[in-house]
Amino acid sequence: MQPLFTQLQTECRHRVDSALKQYIDALPFNQAPLVEAMRYGALLGGKRLRPFLVYATGEMLGLSLDNLDAPAAAIECIHAYSLIHDDLPAMDDDDLRRGQPTCHIKFGEAHAILAGDALQTLAFSILCDADMPAVATIDRLAMVSELARSSGAAGMCAGQALDLEAEKRKIDLSELERIHRHKTGALIRASIRLAALAAGERGKAALPLLDRYANAIGLAFQVQDDILDVIGATEKTGKRQGSDIQHEKSTYPALLGLDNAQKKALDLYQEAMDSLSLLASQSYNTSSLEALAGFIIERDN
Amino acid sequence: MQPLFTQLQTECRHRVDSALKQYIDALPFNQAPLVEAMRYGALLGGKRLRPFLVYATGEMLGLSLDNLDAPAAAIECIHAYSLIHDDLPAMDDDDLRRGQPTCHIKFGEAHAILAGDALQTLAFSILCDADMPAVATIDRLAMVSELARSSGAAGMCAGQALDLEAEKRKIDLSELERIHRHKTGALIRASIRLAALAAGERGKAALPLLDRYANAIGLAFQVQDDILDVIGATEKTGKRQGSDIQHEKSTYPALLGLDNAQKKALDLYQEAMDSLSLLASQSYNTSSLEALAGFIIERDN
Repeated sequence: MQPLFTQLQTECRHRVDSALKQYIDALPFNQAPLVEAMRYGALLGGKRLRPFLVYATGEMLGLSLDNLDAPAAAIECIHAYSLIHDDLPAMDDDDLRRGQPTCHIKFGEAHAILAGDALQTLAFSILCDADMPAVATIDRLAMVSELARSSGAAGMCAGQALDLEAEKRKIDLSELERIHRHKTGALIRASIRLAALAAGERGKAALPLLDRYANAIGLAFQVQDDILDVIGATEKTGKRQGSDIQHEKSTYPALLGLDNAQKKALDLYQEAMDSLSLLASQSYNTSSLEALAGFIIERDN
Repeated sequence: MQPLFTQLQTECRHRVDSALKQYIDALPFNQAPLVEAMRYGALLGGKRLRPFLVYATGEMLGLSLDNLDAPAAAIECIHAYSLIHDDLPAMDDDDLRRGQPTCHIKFGEAHAILAGDALQTLAFSILCDADMPAVATIDRLAMVSELARSSGAAGMCAGQALDLEAEKRKIDLSELERIHRHKTGALIRASIRLAALAAGERGKAALPLLDRYANAIGLAFQVQDDILDVIGATEKTGKRQGSDIQHEKSTYPALLGLDNAQKKALDLYQEAMDSLSLLASQSYNTSSLEALAGFIIERDN
């Protein structure tokens, strides 16, 4: 893996984990099972790609990191809640995540449902209340609005529902793309937009270029996920090789063939890099976002 | 029932139902199962007490109703999501609500989980985005913050978790009160506070009096609920008489005896009315909030 990406990712992980821990510790009843389940779900690890995007975009746009802990933690709370609910028996029924028992296995289903609910709420509390010294009130409100739009029935939840409805049914490429643009793409895009809004970029020239970058890497991430299901080693990906095929899931390799899926991932990478070139030509330092785009298509887990 | 309360309640119900319908219809994929499940959960009826409190408080403080549709609908989205998740098999496992199949019976568990999740998100979207012509941006942000604080791990979700942990265990009066102050009280208080914040009352004299009124009627509502479980007719309350006793739930009549529970409800009513008297002495028209307080302890369902 690229040393730059690995170093930045480690820094982001420490920073967002520390912020998450602080926001959760500040809750009342913070030793109660509900809050323990929230802490477990939020701090179970993971790539922290969304916080990485928040920090990298915000820094590129000139914000200091202390303005970015709140949006980074908020978006990770939304991601964590969605994983807790996704793992429930009525949804994907997963017992393990990142090699650890899922939240409902450890705390019971009722507490897992509530912990997911309360992590969603916490995301909005953080964005409303946490310190963001350089962020204007109107931009803060725009950030809350952005997070809600991207995570609810117009974004992530819509994607999860579209995915449910597509199970065990043949879908075509445009349907598959629509699922992913909502299910994972919406929150990846929101990570970048939250940072841009915090930096006061609402309505300015960088935002459409950042949107284009976000859409490209969001979809590339999913294409690569599907490719790894075919060629990845179980011990790296944490799921059984070929599990998508076994579950008859529609995937990019299934619809396009493996070679064309790999070509699609590369095309999306190129699209992301093209957007960054345009930003670089406006004197932005795009090195962190470039490193992330590289990671997305080179990763093996 | 008092004619004033019944008339106001009907007006509130029509108004908030129309607003909810409009916000939900505006979602993309608005005929998809996810959105149908959200619509079903949000428009299944109910007393609409929380919207009543929003409209009554806001009008008393001089706001026109078009500023109050957003907070009324937002708080009802939170209430609706909590009922959908409460009814799930892993939680209370209820098949019927208000005489109709619960959301997971009608749409399946996975869609019910997602519909609850997305209704929570919608509440925040509405508060961020919907028209509130007289409300300043900073007050709107304070409203979003208030809704998050009162519905998450410091409010409603905490109460639901405390309630789970108290099941089949003997608890004392202070624990019972703590559960209810969070589980139902927090959202009742938030209904009043959202309207006050919309009216620009942050930090002003009416707010502590309204808080005291809200705390009193919130708890009175729950005491009366427990009383109705003992003395209410099943065809009115929609649940089997004595079902709390059968489930060995700690209730006010169980802990205090029926007579003292009825006295407690009356004391709380009096406390609510005392707060309103002080508001009335400052020339506020408190008649709607008085009518609601009367309803809380006189109702038979």
